[in-house]
Amino acid sequence: MNSVIGYYTTQFGELWDKSLFDLVEEAIAGVLKQNKLANEQIDAVFFGNMLAGVLENNLHSTSKIAEILKVNIPIFRAEAACASGGAAFNLAKTYLEANSNKNVLVVGAEKMTDYSPEEAITGLSAASSGEEQEAGLTFPGLYGMMANYYLEKYHYTEENLAYVSVKNHFHGSLNNKAHFRRKITVKDVLSSPYVAFPLKVLDSSPISDGASAVIITNNRDLIKKQKNSVSVLASEVITDTISLKSRKQIDEILATKIATDVAFKKAKISRRDIKVAEVHDCFSIAEILAMEDLGFWEKGTGGNKITELSTMFGNGGSLIVNTSGGLKAAGHPVGATGIKQIGEIFLQLTNQAEKRQVKNAKYGLAHNVGGSGGTAVVTILGI
Amino acid sequence: MNSVIGYYTTQFGELWDKSLFDLVEEAIAGVLKQNKLANEQIDAVFFGNMLAGVLENNLHSTSKIAEILKVNIPIFRAEAACASGGAAFNLAKTYLEANSNKNVLVVGAEKMTDYSPEEAITGLSAASSGEEQEAGLTFPGLYGMMANYYLEKYHYTEENLAYVSVKNHFHGSLNNKAHFRRKITVKDVLSSPYVAFPLKVLDSSPISDGASAVIITNNRDLIKKQKNSVSVLASEVITDTISLKSRKQIDEILATKIATDVAFKKAKISRRDIKVAEVHDCFSIAEILAMEDLGFWEKGTGGNKITELSTMFGNGGSLIVNTSGGLKAAGHPVGATGIKQIGEIFLQLTNQAEKRQVKNAKYGLAHNVGGSGGTAVVTILGI
Repeated sequence: MNSVIGYYTTQFGELWDKSLFDLVEEAIAGVLKQNKLANEQIDAVFFGNMLAGVLENNLHSTSKIAEILKVNIPIFRAEAACASGGAAFNLAKTYLEANSNKNVLVVGAEKMTDYSPEEAITGLSAASSGEEQEAGLTFPGLYGMMANYYLEKYHYTEENLAYVSVKNHFHGSLNNKAHFRRKITVKDVLSSPYVAFPLKVLDSSPISDGASAVIITNNRDLIKKQKNSVSVLASEVITDTISLKSRKQIDEILATKIATDVAFKKAKISRRDIKVAEVHDCFSIAEILAMEDLGFWEKGTGGNKITELSTMFGNGGSLIVNTSGGLKAAGHPVGATGIKQIGEIFLQLTNQAEKRQVKNAKYGLAHNVGGSGGTAVVTILGI
Repeated sequence: MNSVIGYYTTQFGELWDKSLFDLVEEAIAGVLKQNKLANEQIDAVFFGNMLAGVLENNLHSTSKIAEILKVNIPIFRAEAACASGGAAFNLAKTYLEANSNKNVLVVGAEKMTDYSPEEAITGLSAASSGEEQEAGLTFPGLYGMMANYYLEKYHYTEENLAYVSVKNHFHGSLNNKAHFRRKITVKDVLSSPYVAFPLKVLDSSPISDGASAVIITNNRDLIKKQKNSVSVLASEVITDTISLKSRKQIDEILATKIATDVAFKKAKISRRDIKVAEVHDCFSIAEILAMEDLGFWEKGTGGNKITELSTMFGNGGSLIVNTSGGLKAAGHPVGATGIKQIGEIFLQLTNQAEKRQVKNAKYGLAHNVGGSGGTAVVTILGI
């Protein structure tokens, strides 16, 4: 069995005094120190990053990580848009399944705030189809279409969406690594300016800098030595068409549904066993659709369910969602997001989540999406 | 054991009427048809591509391949500069080691000639270190430094380098998929203009378009049904620092040496068993250094050895190198190169190499390099 034995994340936010590789270096040093591992004890590295090529003409990052680690090992970069981190983790898990007694470092990072919003948004739109790019559709535009369809079909309003952001900002206020740490109200969300109708600024995750790293291992002696470790019960990547027009339904992400079903079958647990989940809330609508696609909520009920705030910390619910603050409040340095989600579940399951610690959680799930649903990664962890 | 059971490559060259995904689609359709496989029989896809993000703001290519295949499976993109194809193949092999009874499609592609040479060269320089980029060092510049050092250290001249291109252009003349199919002479090379002293136009691989695909599988029933199959005896990826200034030696690529030693140990064969090799000749000097680093030639003897042309087809040598024409003459659509190299070895070992067929080859090696040596992938195939 593969275990996550350590997690470190840099601050998420506008980190103008740090380069991409400053952040990567901090995350690597942080997680190695935590596990008292020397560079030479790492057998392979998997790196998740989306935009360094587009934004700063920086490719072949694997060799730049070799420059940091000063070791000659296999290092791979995975890119699957906003699911780059989840994809890197999945490849690392596969590597461990094929190789026994190994320690693998998984790092995700993105440096986005040194560029104009236009540059970042143009880069992000590289994840959508050529046709959608040519039509001028941005990601807020694509998720806006999904939101319009969902709200109309199930008779919800923009107010229903707003509760996602209220919850996740509350969680962000409990996480000192989060990009945004202020609480917001439904009124704040509703009075924020539109980005792409019906989505507003406060329905949307920010452009952030940050790097996150985990160590996964199948070295039994090393696992035994650790105070904290969680088992990787499942990690599934499923890819789907990217154009919304190719989808049968635009108010669901089919890749999430397929990945989730396979993941629960492999993990041999039920949805009810999951006490904490990090789901991909790039926009408020995305969290609602994700909760339905993951099978936690019945299709079409999410707009109502979210207003109960049962998934908010401190309300006594049986499943707490996005305790990190999610993409919305913790921030969304794209390549780091999938690793941070897994790291947050690791913190929760090992009682290291401090002010936002959910009690008695034995199982947790992380859900990472690329683009408007072209990739989904579902990871289930357990102690 | 994993086996390569099929290979298809598009024409390499200036393919102005085809987009990146036109080429990918042709390569996928070609290899599936060859193996009489339906899309639904593919369990996972690994895609090697370097520059689509930088040149055409095209990322998340995994979901665009899902759009072509119309199936919901795991699809991954690997990026390791010019070793992206080799890295994708290596990840596919690891996937098969972790999962039994699976068929994996590996595709590599690059679309480079729709852009100005300045755009392509700037994109390619993304593979080098930030410092090297800032100093204005291009890849010809970096390999030029390596060449100068080697020529001076071992008392060779530019004429020694020229033989690499003469040989590889001769091979290109025998390969109807090659970008360049004309034979050239030592005099042609020496009279071509300098790109970066001492390297000239005819010491350098071109900027090309193309896509190549292979199927690898561990499904025994499927392997039995195939007329042609070769075993993957080893595939090793090693990463190294990318800055030349961080290297102990600049006339060797350490990553190649380490990957090769591990690969031969795993394959349980000796260097002498290899009858055909595709080595990474992005510049003439690169093939000479590679032959030394791979252990085929003693260190420092390569400049002399190449002038004997014993590695040229038809000269009766015991090891024939770059029968495809290499990067120099077959062309260098970056992401495709690593797959084409493996595909060429597949053709040779299964007697499908037509006019350039090397007789009685049971073992072959493919060697793919990223940047100025930050990544090396060594793959050994056998029948």
